[in-house]
Amino acid sequence: MIAEIIAVGSEMLTPFRQDTNSLYLTEKFNSLGVTIAFKTIVGDKQRHLVDAIRQALRRVDIVAISGGLGPTEDDLTRECVAEALGRTLTRDAALIANMYARAAARRVTITRNNEKQADVIDGAVILENGRGTAPGQWLDIVHGEHRKLLMLLPGPPSELKGMFDEQCMPLLADALPKRAIAMRVLKAAMIGESQCDARIAPIYQQYTDIETTILAHLGDIQLNLSCSKPFLAQARLRVDELASRIEEELDDVLYSSQGETLEQIVLYYLEMRGASLAVAESCTGGLISERLTGIPGSSRSFAGGAVVYSNELKTLLAGVDPELIGSYGAVSSQVAKALAEGIRERCSAHFGLGVTGIAGPGGGSEDKPVGLVYLAVSTPEETTVLERRFTGDRHRIRHLAAQQALDMVRRRLM
Amino acid sequence: MIAEIIAVGSEMLTPFRQDTNSLYLTEKFNSLGVTIAFKTIVGDKQRHLVDAIRQALRRVDIVAISGGLGPTEDDLTRECVAEALGRTLTRDAALIANMYARAAARRVTITRNNEKQADVIDGAVILENGRGTAPGQWLDIVHGEHRKLLMLLPGPPSELKGMFDEQCMPLLADALPKRAIAMRVLKAAMIGESQCDARIAPIYQQYTDIETTILAHLGDIQLNLSCSKPFLAQARLRVDELASRIEEELDDVLYSSQGETLEQIVLYYLEMRGASLAVAESCTGGLISERLTGIPGSSRSFAGGAVVYSNELKTLLAGVDPELIGSYGAVSSQVAKALAEGIRERCSAHFGLGVTGIAGPGGGSEDKPVGLVYLAVSTPEETTVLERRFTGDRHRIRHLAAQQALDMVRRRLM
Repeated sequence: MIAEIIAVGSEMLTPFRQDTNSLYLTEKFNSLGVTIAFKTIVGDKQRHLVDAIRQALRRVDIVAISGGLGPTEDDLTRECVAEALGRTLTRDAALIANMYARAAARRVTITRNNEKQADVIDGAVILENGRGTAPGQWLDIVHGEHRKLLMLLPGPPSELKGMFDEQCMPLLADALPKRAIAMRVLKAAMIGESQCDARIAPIYQQYTDIETTILAHLGDIQLNLSCSKPFLAQARLRVDELASRIEEELDDVLYSSQGETLEQIVLYYLEMRGASLAVAESCTGGLISERLTGIPGSSRSFAGGAVVYSNELKTLLAGVDPELIGSYGAVSSQVAKALAEGIRERCSAHFGLGVTGIAGPGGGSEDKPVGLVYLAVSTPEETTVLERRFTGDRHRIRHLAAQQALDMVRRRLM
Repeated sequence: MIAEIIAVGSEMLTPFRQDTNSLYLTEKFNSLGVTIAFKTIVGDKQRHLVDAIRQALRRVDIVAISGGLGPTEDDLTRECVAEALGRTLTRDAALIANMYARAAARRVTITRNNEKQADVIDGAVILENGRGTAPGQWLDIVHGEHRKLLMLLPGPPSELKGMFDEQCMPLLADALPKRAIAMRVLKAAMIGESQCDARIAPIYQQYTDIETTILAHLGDIQLNLSCSKPFLAQARLRVDELASRIEEELDDVLYSSQGETLEQIVLYYLEMRGASLAVAESCTGGLISERLTGIPGSSRSFAGGAVVYSNELKTLLAGVDPELIGSYGAVSSQVAKALAEGIRERCSAHFGLGVTGIAGPGGGSEDKPVGLVYLAVSTPEETTVLERRFTGDRHRIRHLAAQQALDMVRRRLM
C-alpha cells in the first residue's frame, strides 16, 4: 500500500514556511507498513488543489490531506475533494448545532462563516476535532474501480496529531492488512557519517528485512532500525539482533541504544553516581549549559557554570591565573585545564568541564587557526585535556565543540 | 508565470529528512516574479518520477528538479526527464573527458559508473557544477504547444545554490519578462501574531501591490514586505512607504527595520555606547549567552556571565545573599535584582542582566506557577525588574524568557 500526503496552504509555498505535518504522518503511516510515495504541497487555489487531489487518487491507495478546513474563503479542501471525487457536499445540521453549543459553553460568539465547516462529503465519516473547530473527514470508498482511503485533516499540528492518533490510526489499522513494526534507535557521537557507514554496512546489509537509516548532524549520528513482520515478536527479535551486532561494532562511539540524547545520557550517569557537574565555557558561549538545562530535572545534577568569554571573566569567575593566559594564550591546553579545575572548585562540584577555542570567523592565526579547541574534564583526582581541530563555520565549530565536550564527560563517567 | 519544484530522493519521504532546497529556490524564483504553485517530493522510483515530471509539465511553465543526478543506480532524473519529454539521452564525450581530467587533477580515481553523469537530454544546455561531479541541465523548449523551462539541479544544497545562482538566474532573467522586486524585513519582539496583525492589517491592506507576510516564532515577529514593479525605484518607493507606516504603528515593539536579529541589535547598541554586558541566567540556562555569542565579534561587548542553576551558584558566582533566597525564594523579583546587580559587579560590566523563573514541567506551586519569570537589568544608577507569566512547555517558556530578557536590555539601551 502506498500513500500520498497533500499539504494545503499558500504560506507553505513561500520561502518562509515549510510543511512539517508530513514528517509526523510519515512516521505514523510507516508504523502501519504504509510507504509514502509522494508528498505534494499546494496553495489555496481551487483549480490547483482539485488537480493535486485527482493525481493522488490516480496514483496511490491512501491520500492524507492536511489544511484548508477552516472557516475562511481560502479554506477549500472540502469543496475540492468533493469535486475531485464527483460527490456532493451536504451541510450537517448536527455538526452546526454542536459548533454553536461548544462556542456557547466557552462563552464566545462564532460568526456565520463557521458553518461551512459542517459541510460533509457524501459517504464521509466525521472526525471530531477535540482541539479546534474544524472537523476532519474520513472516506473509505471505491473510486475508478479501486479502493481508496482519504482523510481530510486540520492544518494546525496539535489538532492534526490528536485527530490522527485517536481516530485515523484505529480506522487505518482496521482497514489495512495486519503488520507489526519493531523499531530501535541507536546513537553515536563524534564519528563521521561515511566512516560510521563503512563500519556497519557489512552488518546491516545482511538484514535485508530491516530498514536501516543513518542520520548525521554536527557530530551526532542516529541509526534508525525498522522491521515489519506479521507478528511483533518476530520483528523485535530481528531488530534486537541487528542492534546488538551494531552496538558491538560501534562500542567505542555508541552512547545510546534507546534513542536518548547525549545530554540526557550525561545527566543520567551523573545522577546514578550522585555527582554534580559545573561548566566553564568560552568558545561554546553557553551551548553546553543550554543543552543540559533543556532537560527537565537537570538541576539535580547540573549545578551551572560560567560563560567566560573575556580573559577577565576567566579569572574572575573560574579562577584562572592571569599569568597562565599571558604565557600560553586564552586558547591553550593549560587554560582549558585551569578552567575545568577552577569552575569545579568554585562551584564545589564533583566534575568540572572547561572549553576554550577559536570559533571564527576572526581570531585565528597560523599557530592557532580557527577551529582549534581545547577541552578539559576535571575531578579532584585528575584532569584530562583534549585538543581538537574542527573545520567549518562558526556555528559548526561551536556545536562540534559542545558535542565533543559532552561526550568527553560521558566517557569520564562510564 | 508559475513554477513547480520537484525534490527527488527517497530519503525525503522518511520521517527523518525534509527537502530544504525548495525554500532557497522559492526565494530566488519569487525575486524574479515567479510564483511557486506546487512542490512535489518523490522517491528514486522511475515510474513515480516520470509521473511527477509529466504532471508538472502539464500544469506549470517552469519546472525545477533537484536531486537524482549522481552516479548510482538510484539516480534517475536524467532518464526520467528524457522519458517524460520523449527525447533521447546522449553521452557527451567532452563531459566525460572533463570528468576524468578533474579527477586526475585531484589525484583521485573515479569509477566507470560516473560516466552516466555525462548523459545529456536532447536540446539541453549543460550547467557546470563547480562544487561536485554531477553537471546540471537547462531546457528551454516547446512541449505540448507551450513554452516550458526545465532545470535539472544537483541535490546537495551547496552544489544546487552555486549552480542556480551563477547559471540559472542569468538564464531565467533572460527568459522571463523583466520585473524588479524590492523587499524589506521588519522585526518586533514580545507581541502576539494576531495582535500584531490587528494593528497593521488596516495599513498593509491598502497596499495591494505589496505582498506582506507575518511570521511569528517564540516572541519574535518577522514582517516580510515584497513588491514587484517594472522598475526597481518604483518598487523600492512603495515598500519603503509601507515600511515607514508600519514602523510608526509598531513603534513600541519594533526592534529592527533591516532584518537584524534581536541579539545583533543588542550587541550593536552596546558597541555604539562602548558598553559591556554580563548575564546571570537561571531558568534560561545559557540560552541568552548562547544567542549573543552566536554572533561573530560579540566578544567586543559581551563579557560573559554565569549559569546559576542551583541556589549555591547564585551566591558563589553572582554574589546573591543567601538570606535573600531564604526569605523570598530563588524565583522572586528580589533575587532577579540581586542577580543582575551581582553579575554586573562581579564582571565589572556596565550592564547586568538577571533571569530567574520556573520553566517546568515540575517546580511550580499555586503561588509561583510554572511560567513565572522575573527579569532584571542593572546599571550603576538603577535596576529595573519585570515580572512575566508565560504559558506553554519548558522549551517555550525558556525561549520566551530569553527573548524578553534581550528585549529588556535593548529598551534600556535605546
